[in-house]
Amino acid sequence: MREKYLPAARESRIKSGGRLPLFQPGDIVKTLSEQLLEMESHRSIFESELRRLPLPVCPVFGSAGSPAPIRFAGSGEILKTPDNAIVARSFPLSIEASGNAVLAFSASNANPPKGKRVAVLFSGGPAAGGHNVVAGIRRALGPENTLFGVTPGPKGLIKGNLFEITDETLRMYINTGGFDFLGTDRTKIKTDEQFRQVKECCVRHNLDAIVVVGGDDSNTNAAVLAETLFRDVKPDGSGVQVIGVPKTIDGDLQVDGLLPISFGFDTATKIYSEMVGNILQDTRSSLKYWHFIKLMGRSASHVTLEVALQTKPAVALISEEIAEKKQSFSSIIDQIARAVVARSRKGINHGVVLVPEGLIEFIPEIHYLIVELNDVLAHNDKEFSRLHDSARLIFIQNKLSSENAALLASLPDYIVNQLLTERDSHGNLQVSLIPTEQLLIDMTARYVREIDASIPFSAQSHFFGYEGRCGAPTRFDAAYTYNLGLTAASLVLDGRTGYMASLTGLGDGGHPVAIPLTGLLHIERRQGQDEFVIRKALVRMNSPSMRYFVSRRDDWADDDHFSSPGPRQMWGPAAHQQPITVALNSNAGSLEFKIG
Amino acid sequence: MREKYLPAARESRIKSGGRLPLFQPGDIVKTLSEQLLEMESHRSIFESELRRLPLPVCPVFGSAGSPAPIRFAGSGEILKTPDNAIVARSFPLSIEASGNAVLAFSASNANPPKGKRVAVLFSGGPAAGGHNVVAGIRRALGPENTLFGVTPGPKGLIKGNLFEITDETLRMYINTGGFDFLGTDRTKIKTDEQFRQVKECCVRHNLDAIVVVGGDDSNTNAAVLAETLFRDVKPDGSGVQVIGVPKTIDGDLQVDGLLPISFGFDTATKIYSEMVGNILQDTRSSLKYWHFIKLMGRSASHVTLEVALQTKPAVALISEEIAEKKQSFSSIIDQIARAVVARSRKGINHGVVLVPEGLIEFIPEIHYLIVELNDVLAHNDKEFSRLHDSARLIFIQNKLSSENAALLASLPDYIVNQLLTERDSHGNLQVSLIPTEQLLIDMTARYVREIDASIPFSAQSHFFGYEGRCGAPTRFDAAYTYNLGLTAASLVLDGRTGYMASLTGLGDGGHPVAIPLTGLLHIERRQGQDEFVIRKALVRMNSPSMRYFVSRRDDWADDDHFSSPGPRQMWGPAAHQQPITVALNSNAGSLEFKIG
Repeated sequence: MREKYLPAARESRIKSGGRLPLFQPGDIVKTLSEQLLEMESHRSIFESELRRLPLPVCPVFGSAGSPAPIRFAGSGEILKTPDNAIVARSFPLSIEASGNAVLAFSASNANPPKGKRVAVLFSGGPAAGGHNVVAGIRRALGPENTLFGVTPGPKGLIKGNLFEITDETLRMYINTGGFDFLGTDRTKIKTDEQFRQVKECCVRHNLDAIVVVGGDDSNTNAAVLAETLFRDVKPDGSGVQVIGVPKTIDGDLQVDGLLPISFGFDTATKIYSEMVGNILQDTRSSLKYWHFIKLMGRSASHVTLEVALQTKPAVALISEEIAEKKQSFSSIIDQIARAVVARSRKGINHGVVLVPEGLIEFIPEIHYLIVELNDVLAHNDKEFSRLHDSARLIFIQNKLSSENAALLASLPDYIVNQLLTERDSHGNLQVSLIPTEQLLIDMTARYVREIDASIPFSAQSHFFGYEGRCGAPTRFDAAYTYNLGLTAASLVLDGRTGYMASLTGLGDGGHPVAIPLTGLLHIERRQGQDEFVIRKALVRMNSPSMRYFVSRRDDWADDDHFSSPGPRQMWGPAAHQQPITVALNSNAGSLEFKIG
Repeated sequence: MREKYLPAARESRIKSGGRLPLFQPGDIVKTLSEQLLEMESHRSIFESELRRLPLPVCPVFGSAGSPAPIRFAGSGEILKTPDNAIVARSFPLSIEASGNAVLAFSASNANPPKGKRVAVLFSGGPAAGGHNVVAGIRRALGPENTLFGVTPGPKGLIKGNLFEITDETLRMYINTGGFDFLGTDRTKIKTDEQFRQVKECCVRHNLDAIVVVGGDDSNTNAAVLAETLFRDVKPDGSGVQVIGVPKTIDGDLQVDGLLPISFGFDTATKIYSEMVGNILQDTRSSLKYWHFIKLMGRSASHVTLEVALQTKPAVALISEEIAEKKQSFSSIIDQIARAVVARSRKGINHGVVLVPEGLIEFIPEIHYLIVELNDVLAHNDKEFSRLHDSARLIFIQNKLSSENAALLASLPDYIVNQLLTERDSHGNLQVSLIPTEQLLIDMTARYVREIDASIPFSAQSHFFGYEGRCGAPTRFDAAYTYNLGLTAASLVLDGRTGYMASLTGLGDGGHPVAIPLTGLLHIERRQGQDEFVIRKALVRMNSPSMRYFVSRRDDWADDDHFSSPGPRQMWGPAAHQQPITVALNSNAGSLEFKIG
């Protein structure tokens, strides 16, 4: 990966001191073509300047120029979940060591161990800031310890694909987005054979610690790995420490008072907010379109809530609210249609509706329809599959409860067809394939016509997803992740295992925290089996951010009040904002963050 | 429009001195909720700071603090097209006055006329910088002349919807994106009744001049309007001057040596380039997807070429090249499939393909298929419409030439269905509805399988369009448009009509230029009628930008060399870049522009 990254000629130039293209005093004047050639492979003016930005460090790490690792002590807080007792039986070693105690800074680590060999891997979808986590780890480990990169992801750990990360190879990646330095994958380490292979990798590379950068599932996997590798891994009987770092653009990895947000969320939501802001500006310029915009977040609506707070659209649907209020599908459509009609009567024939990706699965009535459909299909599979397309709907309708038959009949044909034809390998309907944004448009059009056929309603749909995962990190994500890396490496050097690195006090310099992973575990039934999980943090109705949204949304539906955080600024007066939801939920005094 | 824009309480605050939220020394400390409330309606930290950015002016306008209008004289260059003689017969008054002579700066306009009443309107799709055009016009007109905004677009002119633009109302719009200050529409003023209504509007508001901000069609319309309104409009026999300002994100309004680029292109392509750059980064992080990305540009591929030069993807298709080389559809697919296979054999199972929106219509063989299909359908409409869906394809196949029958048979079913069912009001196939990016994915998958079934090929599609039209203008577009506005108003005050404002020397301070619109007109047959048109500037194979692209693209297909211009920076070291295509085509020494 890394060897391929740079064409050879450039690699040597970088090694000779990381000279950047353009603006170098004393340079021989180059033609524009020559300059353009030098700007290939992540050397645009923007990317080259990005690498020069300062990396602030929390006060406990000392000076930004030479941050030093810290030591930890119990903060006094002990974590537990309702499934505490069962967890304790499965993670005896980890819990005996940690006592599920949250750790905080105790002292600077004046004499950190030497000769430690640490591996770092990315797991799951990319998020902005991963490279700065690696940079922070490398920095805190210092020259006396060795850092390896695992390529790619957990699969790379199983295969034992490691390479040594030097300051030199890292230089090109500081402050850049994506996970391309190491690559990533979604393998979950769970079989005995996989654990054996991981242990073999640890022995072969004589590893002392593994840092897993990932979301809720990956951090659960890290907890299991920490217990499995606790001792007796290497010939001398020693174990391998495992530390997690909280990543996910969905923002659903949060711990009250201990983990304000997962990294990557700020960058992704600011990318989406710029796009949504641009489209809002377009609606008011073109004066004739509604735009229905689906945003990432299958489980939680944090992304939609944050983008709504940033941009103030006419409508933003929050899945958790719909589930909690048990809203019917028709009431959701009715709500949108009424906003369309009310605005139109004031001469506003445009607007934006934000839709979280997972919405459809949160609507109780759709949920019941799906459950019954799956059941009916499972029990009548042979007969159903022999039927001609046109006969299938009637066949199914007759088997459904009257409520579900009516709901199915109310959906557009293409949705019904999709529901009845696309099934996954378990024979279940693939709800995630439903184009929710188009479904909402078609249903809204129907409702608007019913309310008042003279109201114009013309709509476009969008889905913003991949665009937000790999952008260059905001100054917030860049600073946050670098310090998460310093924290993770400090935990390694302090001999800890089974912890997730975190940072609190984001408006107050930043305070490193270590969260015992076992203290977050619940038991959940997944595909018929009890599994340990870190529960996804959902949007809570009584959170300050949701309450603020609820207090303003009627005004936003009533008339245009939109604004935009703009494209992410890395320099200048608009470069230092944290997410609005995070600021509100942590009772911050302003949007400005202060790390370092 | 403008009255609705600001809730009353805010309007008064703005009027009392434009106080911005946050960061005001001496402010009473506000809660975060209060701050958020103040950030609604385009008052985010970013948007508020954006309005404070300096607006540079070309040296001929004097100081940036108090720019003054200029006077013009012939530059010595006379424009003509092959259709010159016919144009001269239809535009006698304009050409008698202008002689089709290009104008340049002659002197500062020390005693500009007073009491002039000027209207400005936006026409066609929004583009970043329109508000700064208005700001430039307002500034150069000075306090002794009056500027009106027309809402919305040409339709507003016909209806006579004008309001006076004051410095106060303008303040909120400086440096902001979109056309929401005035709105826009796509009405073409062409009937006698419409011209009568426009004249009535001119008389009613006692207008002296109209500035039309628009693309090739709108500037053609401006030429016609200039001739029509040349004299005898108002009771005293006087006419109304008409000046055009070149706008279009597609970049297809360019004039060799006189108009380097239309405004909005730089912002749109930098927005798309950031998204494409993010996705490129994602491909190398996730290591398993190809992304096919459709970009705006139905007629010309300037957007795709610019984004390709900014981001260096594996493949970028240029419609004009395909047409010029008469490439077959299968050869295009083959080219993509071979890149997929060659990369895969090196272990690279990812990549990005850029596709210009209009591609499909530029492929000669598809063009002939469409022509024959339209013909066959027109002659067999009754019989065809009586047939069942499943019989239609066979019916059509039998009527087509063997080449076209084979081509049709090679297309995926959903494309064939779409071709045969969706027709416009003239009964023609709606080529623009074909999802080109999905078609390319499906055909590529088939070709890759044929070459080597073991090659993994998993692809996603995207279309970036609306997202790029209304973003905040780049520093380039902001400076460019402000000076286009100063130039347009200077032309009005200098008594000119039938000119398009332009700026050359973008690396050299900027030189205002006036292009006689009649010197750009060609005759083209559209829908069976001869019409005057300003020909869209297409990508030329021998242009420096295309030649540079051709010289590098094989390397980009061969291995990842991508980079990204990043999110648009308004402050800091990466804020001052012009488009790469513009810099190359104008033989610039670097990407840095210098206006003012």
